[in-house]
Amino acid sequence: MRPPTIRDVAERAGVSKSLVSLVLRGSDQVRPEKRDAVLRAAQELGYRPNAAARSLSERRTHTVGVLLNDLRNPWFVDLLDGLKSLLHANGLRMLLADARLNRRTGQDPADPLLDLRVDGLVVVGTLPDPAALGDVAGRIPVVMAGSREPAPPGVDVVAGDDERGARLVTEHLIGLGHRRIAHIAGYGAVGGLRRRSFEATMGRHGLADQVVVEPSDMTEEGGYRATVRLFSRPDRPTAVFAVNDIAAIGALSAAGELGLRVPDDLSVAGYDNTSIARLRHVWLTTVDNTSHDIGRRAAHCLLERFEGVGGEGRIQLATPTLEIRGTTAPAP
Amino acid sequence: MRPPTIRDVAERAGVSKSLVSLVLRGSDQVRPEKRDAVLRAAQELGYRPNAAARSLSERRTHTVGVLLNDLRNPWFVDLLDGLKSLLHANGLRMLLADARLNRRTGQDPADPLLDLRVDGLVVVGTLPDPAALGDVAGRIPVVMAGSREPAPPGVDVVAGDDERGARLVTEHLIGLGHRRIAHIAGYGAVGGLRRRSFEATMGRHGLADQVVVEPSDMTEEGGYRATVRLFSRPDRPTAVFAVNDIAAIGALSAAGELGLRVPDDLSVAGYDNTSIARLRHVWLTTVDNTSHDIGRRAAHCLLERFEGVGGEGRIQLATPTLEIRGTTAPAP
Repeated sequence: MRPPTIRDVAERAGVSKSLVSLVLRGSDQVRPEKRDAVLRAAQELGYRPNAAARSLSERRTHTVGVLLNDLRNPWFVDLLDGLKSLLHANGLRMLLADARLNRRTGQDPADPLLDLRVDGLVVVGTLPDPAALGDVAGRIPVVMAGSREPAPPGVDVVAGDDERGARLVTEHLIGLGHRRIAHIAGYGAVGGLRRRSFEATMGRHGLADQVVVEPSDMTEEGGYRATVRLFSRPDRPTAVFAVNDIAAIGALSAAGELGLRVPDDLSVAGYDNTSIARLRHVWLTTVDNTSHDIGRRAAHCLLERFEGVGGEGRIQLATPTLEIRGTTAPAP
Repeated sequence: MRPPTIRDVAERAGVSKSLVSLVLRGSDQVRPEKRDAVLRAAQELGYRPNAAARSLSERRTHTVGVLLNDLRNPWFVDLLDGLKSLLHANGLRMLLADARLNRRTGQDPADPLLDLRVDGLVVVGTLPDPAALGDVAGRIPVVMAGSREPAPPGVDVVAGDDERGARLVTEHLIGLGHRRIAHIAGYGAVGGLRRRSFEATMGRHGLADQVVVEPSDMTEEGGYRATVRLFSRPDRPTAVFAVNDIAAIGALSAAGELGLRVPDDLSVAGYDNTSIARLRHVWLTTVDNTSHDIGRRAAHCLLERFEGVGGEGRIQLATPTLEIRGTTAPAP
């Protein structure tokens, strides 16, 4: 059973092969009745344009590659929805690759997407080696979304304003009367920005001497251990601001085991507004990155790069908002 | 800046184009020193084999497409790890597409993968229209993983044994002394299998008259509402078995609001052993689908189909295990 070719479509529609080709490329040089006949024939035969063949001549597969850092943490879901909204409106589809899943092949994680000739690349989250994107950016448009790592030349960055988000949540806790506030810190550019903004905000409110910081690996287990360490100290905090939601969930578990009621004895806040924070059973106060907006803006940058706009690279920051839920309350 | 071609590699290595081609195809007909020279030249030039061009001649992109039903529910993560383990060992990479993300383009959700000529397709979870896979299966190997929907001819199915899993959890609750046990039911093939097995197991233990079933849409909100309905009845259950973890989380929330302590007043069990069930803060008794094993077996079926084995399609069921955690206890 041989798949139908462009010749079969042309025969059935009673036109030439090159007219079929024009129609399939979306040309407006073709009379409507001819166009309809070609499209009808293509549909009846189940003809599938060979994107691989097209890409050789036009270098356009109408597909954008999205490289995710790790599918296991679903913080990127709203971001992908935002990307989709603008890419689909422009006739572009999305294929995904997981950097973690393809790591052990000894290849650059973007390779499977590049080998199949995607038209552009969106990198979502932090990659082990963002500098490697510099090579890719020499060939196709590249945008980094949701990460604040330094980008190589020619790559745009769209991310949340972590400094502002950490300030919002710290001021929320101070406004509730908390003085002794602990931060469960993370790593990387995002971890550093959130931590420094927490410390600066505490300082501006005359609370520099009340700052407590415990490092973590940004996992649930890390948040749990950091909280246990915090409560083995003499000066116990009345509030904990964790670098992300999943570490905050660890803090909630530790509080439960230590016999502390949340939010009566201890307030806990996270960051990212993941689906876990929104569970009624958790109902975590957190910072919303407006990830849908970040995705939409990243798509816009990519579309501009297709038109040759963008140059050395731009940085855009989306404005986060505070989501006050059930885990924060006035200081005891 | 033109990308390097096979001709550039041949010139630099001092060999013919066809020898470069042989080396890049992994031929063992080439002398080691020539092979090394070609590979060194390719690396120094940053040559990238054009998978799109290769696919025209060989129809092999060495890439397997994975179609996910919805990235927002991360139950499939272990399954992908299992797929990876075997595919990578065979030199195959994975590209992903999300059926939900590409839905509005008016295309079949597998189209972006097929247009770029993936060598095979693994469908993870339930698609709106699995019958459409029949066409695809006529052209490339297709395997369905983690779903029990009826498969079209020529498609293999690898999934968990839902009947057995539901029996395990029901017998666990009966063994704890529970008699009045409610089931928060789901939909589709999986929902039906879990429900019927729950009812059959209750019947075998002489508890057919203690069966209570409330329907749900398999979401957190659905689990919450079903539980509220259950506790507005005169004969309240002492245990709830939910069709999946996320509905069980909804049941936990409802229990909290109704002033019921879990597990002292009410036992709650889920299904799927998702990352949420494993959170220390949740610590949900649930059924583990052995998803990594399902993924590995699905990869095995696909590799066999590349060799022409498989025929009309096979069904393989993986044996689930019970994960007893903190939300189930002896009946009050």
